[in-house]
Parts: sequence; structure tokens; C-alpha cells
Amino acid sequence: MSFEPPIPTLCRDGDAVVVLDQTALPHRVATARIETLEQAAHAITHMQVRGAPLIGATAAFGVALALRDGADDARLDHALAVLAATRPTAVNLHWALARMRARLAPLPPAERPGAAWDEAEAIRRHDRDTCAAIGRHGAALLAHMADGLGRPLRVMTHCNAGWVATCGAGTATAPVYAAHALGIDVHVWVSETRPRNQGLLTEWELRQAGVPHTLVVDNAAGILLARGEVDVVITGADRIALNGDTANKVGTYLKALAARDNGVPVWIAAPWSTVDATLADGAGIPIEERNADEVRVLAGTGDDGRPARLRVAPPEAPAGNLAFDVTPARLIDRIITESGAFAPAELAAARPETPHG
Amino acid sequence: MSFEPPIPTLCRDGDAVVVLDQTALPHRVATARIETLEQAAHAITHMQVRGAPLIGATAAFGVALALRDGADDARLDHALAVLAATRPTAVNLHWALARMRARLAPLPPAERPGAAWDEAEAIRRHDRDTCAAIGRHGAALLAHMADGLGRPLRVMTHCNAGWVATCGAGTATAPVYAAHALGIDVHVWVSETRPRNQGLLTEWELRQAGVPHTLVVDNAAGILLARGEVDVVITGADRIALNGDTANKVGTYLKALAARDNGVPVWIAAPWSTVDATLADGAGIPIEERNADEVRVLAGTGDDGRPARLRVAPPEAPAGNLAFDVTPARLIDRIITESGAFAPAELAAARPETPHG
Repeated sequence: MSFEPPIPTLCRDGDAVVVLDQTALPHRVATARIETLEQAAHAITHMQVRGAPLIGATAAFGVALALRDGADDARLDHALAVLAATRPTAVNLHWALARMRARLAPLPPAERPGAAWDEAEAIRRHDRDTCAAIGRHGAALLAHMADGLGRPLRVMTHCNAGWVATCGAGTATAPVYAAHALGIDVHVWVSETRPRNQGLLTEWELRQAGVPHTLVVDNAAGILLARGEVDVVITGADRIALNGDTANKVGTYLKALAARDNGVPVWIAAPWSTVDATLADGAGIPIEERNADEVRVLAGTGDDGRPARLRVAPPEAPAGNLAFDVTPARLIDRIITESGAFAPAELAAARPETPHG
Repeated sequence: MSFEPPIPTLCRDGDAVVVLDQTALPHRVATARIETLEQAAHAITHMQVRGAPLIGATAAFGVALALRDGADDARLDHALAVLAATRPTAVNLHWALARMRARLAPLPPAERPGAAWDEAEAIRRHDRDTCAAIGRHGAALLAHMADGLGRPLRVMTHCNAGWVATCGAGTATAPVYAAHALGIDVHVWVSETRPRNQGLLTEWELRQAGVPHTLVVDNAAGILLARGEVDVVITGADRIALNGDTANKVGTYLKALAARDNGVPVWIAAPWSTVDATLADGAGIPIEERNADEVRVLAGTGDDGRPARLRVAPPEAPAGNLAFDVTPARLIDRIITESGAFAPAELAAARPETPHG
């Protein structure tokens, strides 16, 4: 009864990697073939692949691609540096690169290319298993909540932490898919997640999977929570400090505030690789500032010939584009990992010595 | 030194009314000619005119248009009913219609058409004066805040409560324009305000007026407030209950929560006609649900030939579109009216017997 992603987000194809090109979704399903380190870095930076776990796996394969034509220390260091610079906030990226370095650096250069492919593949499989475990732990909590409810259990999420963001069933959506597979009547409020509208990926995913849901603008979270239309907020995370402070897509903090103001629990679903053991709290998490053109949306004619309904923000409009925010641990009720659900205060003690070792 | 709107939002032209067509802004400046009751109702429903004060004034002129060819009681009642049904949340609409009824109903039908034009014009002028007074009171508060600051005073707003939303200098923006005219160094954070992106109207207004500002997505409010980048949040209102609970464009409540969480004051700038004396608190405020197609944004090619960057939400995506939310009075520090600034708890006692009488 476990959820199987209908399309692989990332797979090896000989000496290359094929990824689902998320910039084309949900308009059309397209893939991108990645053959070089530079193409891997570009795919991450331009969000052809996105989602903290998938970024980590893609970076691991990027190392393997970089070592195809030579694998001395300089080449390895260069690959790790190029990939580490692609996205500043997601820590899984750095976890995956550290794992690749630990595996490859001790080997003689001749053995590194083969080991790189193997290790990247191990990271991919590990992420798949991690998603499944998060789904099981989260679904147990949802089942408890839904017991005797007599109406659908209403989950609100933000951004996309679904299967397209991972190598498995997703993080925030994994409990939803698992609950749906168990026959629990679940409904999802999907926020569009401006400026990149990754919520439309979540809407598309849920529609393909037959999970009832409703798309709303990010601004609607407050009124929905105030009206009692939401039972639990579940999001993914890009980096979690040891005290539970959580960086996730910009807007998560606003949802957490509104949830708390209305007595609704907030859960973060993320693998241990998202926990940054070097940070005591969220103050030190770097927040990516992306190109402001993402905010200056163009309008015009839609692909179906109908006029687009958005107003134009002209190129001369001054704009800012912080891509993440930090939700303080005091607003978070549970952090669901592959080894169970914890209160933020339990996180540091519960953390395994070598997460994903 | 007072602010003069560069283009009239509404003016009489013989037996018709010409309005600035806000659905074309900021892409181009266009006007719409309104000659009938039905056209007036359509202009309000389809948001060619929008903003609580301007909706009220437009409805008043709509009554005058309806009485051009006959002004018996049945015709007057019909006009008032059609216009009252256009938008459910903004109370200024009902205030303006009640004022028209009070002026016209006692008159013999033959005198009503002329009196209707005069009363509508009086409502328009009154709104202009009201905006100016709100600007003076708000600018005095801003000047106090800016005194000795040594850096720009940073105001965050939501939606558009600027000059295009009124017959004068705006409500939320009136203090900003007045402060700017006084030489106060002010910077405005402009939220795009999905789904209709009225924030782009605010961006356009401020750019025309030379007021420094930055456009951000609605999701960015939390991180900006948490980083100490905002000194005060000022928004307009569509309806205010006697205890100060305030209905405004959806998303306002989220900004107010984030402001409170970071110790930043929240001000509502609105005329007394926005206060609904029939409501003790915000629980009874009707919340307009608009067509979900506003949420299903189309992407495609921009007017300049560049690809639009928004993902497509297909017509089959289930979507919801609540257009307003209610910010509880406990999150509001000041309500700035034409007769001064009040704490929410002072509102009921401060309210004039006949607002705008």
C-alpha cells in the first residue's frame, strides 16, 4: 500500500543523469539530460531540480559526472566547491557533498569514478527509504487525529515537499500519501507559494494521486485557519537547527504564526540530513536571496490563448526576493524524521550520531 | 505640499461617469465610460473600480445614472438593490447607498435626478477631504517615529489603499504621501497581494510619486519583520467592527500576526464610513468568495515577448478564493480616521454620531 512516484525524479542513464525538469511542470512532463558538472550545478541553481532532498542527491550525482574524465584531488575539490555554491539555504546539499568527500577522498583516483556513482546511487536509495519511513511515522499521527472525526482530516501545506522534491514519496506529503493509502479521508490545502509557485507542483502531484485538495493563494492561510478549516499544518524544511528552529520556503513562518494563533499544530517533516548539527539555533541559517525577476511576473497571453490574468510588474519596479524564512521552534509541535516524531526540544538528544551514515 | 492624484479615478462627464479602468493598470492607463446602472455595477464587480472608498463613490454615481430616465420609488429601490449586491465585504458601499437613499427618498421624483448627481459629487469631494485628513493625522505619527532615526522610516503595506482606491490621496498611502511631502525619508515595502496583485498598483503609484519602495511577494512579510526591516505596518480596511476587528484584503491578518510577533505596530487607515456600527465585533463580517479562476493563473508569453515565469494551474485544479480576512483588534495598535488616530478600544466612543453626515 506504499506510495510509488509515477515518474522518477532522477535516474542514471549510462554516463549521464536524467532528471524530471520541474520548470516545465505542471504544464508538461519533460526531462533534462545532465552530462557535466556544470549542467548539474545549473539544474540546481535554475531549479530544474529542487526540494532539499533531491538537491542533495543531484549534487551527489554531479560529483560522479565531474570525475568521469579524471578524478584527482583538485578535480574532486573543484566539483565539491562548485556544487556547494549552488543554493545556500538547503543543508542536505552539504550533507550529501560531505558524504561524497568522506567516501571518495581516501580512495586512489582510479577508484573514485566508480565509487562516486555507487555512493550517489546509495544516497538516492537512502532518500527513497527515508521518505517511506517519514510517511509511516506521519501517517500514524494522522490516523490518530482522524480517528472518529466523521469528516475529512484537513492538512495545510506550503511549497512542494512532495515526491517531485525527493527520490521517494516526498517529505511533507509522505504522511498524506501514506494516510490516503490507509483509507483515511484526507483533504489538503495547497498554497501556491509565490514567487515560484511550487504549490502548483503539489496540486499536480495530489491530482495525479487522487488525493482531494484545494489550491489557494498564500494569503488565504490566515482566514482558513481562523475559520477552523485546518486540522494540521505540515511542511518540509531546508535546514533545521539543533533547537528546532526551521528554515523553509518563505511564507512558512506566517502559516506557523496563524496556526498557533488558532490552536492548530504545526509539523515539520524532514530527514535527519536536514538537521544542521553545527547550528544551535536558526539565527545562523543563511537565507538565499534570489533574482528579483522572479517577483516581477509578466502577464500576457496564456498558452491556451486566453489572456493571463496577472498584472504586469515592469522591469523598472524595484523588487526584493528572499526565498526562505525561519520558523522559531516555539511555533513547531512535531518534527517528523525517518526515526520518528519529536518535539523540537527533543531533537538534539534524538539525533543519530551519523545521520544517514 | 499636499498630494494631488495625477489622474482622477472618477469624474462626471455630462450624463455619464468616466473612471480610471484599474484592470489595465499598471500596464497602461485607460478609462472606462459608464452610462448605465448595469455598467456601474459591472465596473464594481469586475474591479475596474476597486478600493472601499472608491466603490462607495462609484455606487453613488451609479444611482444618479439609474435615475436619468425616471426616478420613481421602484427605480430608486432597484438601483440601490443592484448596487448593494456588487461586493459583500466593503461597508462604505452600503454607507454611500444609505446616504443616497436618505437624500433622495423624501424628494418628489422630478427632483431626484439632479439631487442624485449633487449628492454623489458631495460624496466624492468628501472622500477627497477625508483622505487628506487621514494623511495629516498619519503623517504626524510617522514624523514622530522618524524623528532622529538617521535612516529611512520603513512602512509595510498590503493590497492597494492608495489614490487609485479613493477619490483623493488614498487611505493607507495618504500618511506616506503626506510624510514624503514633509521631507521625511520614507521607504515602503509593497506586497504583491495575490490573487489580483493590487500591490502592483501600489508599486506603480509610489513610482509615479517618487516614493522609494520595494515590491515583494506576500510570503516575504514574515522574514522582513523578523529581520527588523519594518518600522510600521499600515493598511486600509473594508469594514471595521465597533471593537476594532478589521476586515481587509486577504493576507492582512498574517502581516498583523508577524508584526505583533516582532513588536512592530499595526495601523489601519480608513474613513469613519468604514466602521460598521451594527457590528460589535468581526465575527459577523461577510467574507466575499470570488471566482476561483483568479487563483488559477495562466502563464505563457509576456506582452514584451518574454516567457511568463508563472507555472500554470490548469482549469481542472480545484481552487478556493476567499478575498478578505479579519484581523482581530488585539493585533491592531492604531486606527487612523479623518478625525484622528485611536486605539481599537477607543473606537466606539470616538465615532461621530453621523459619520460623513
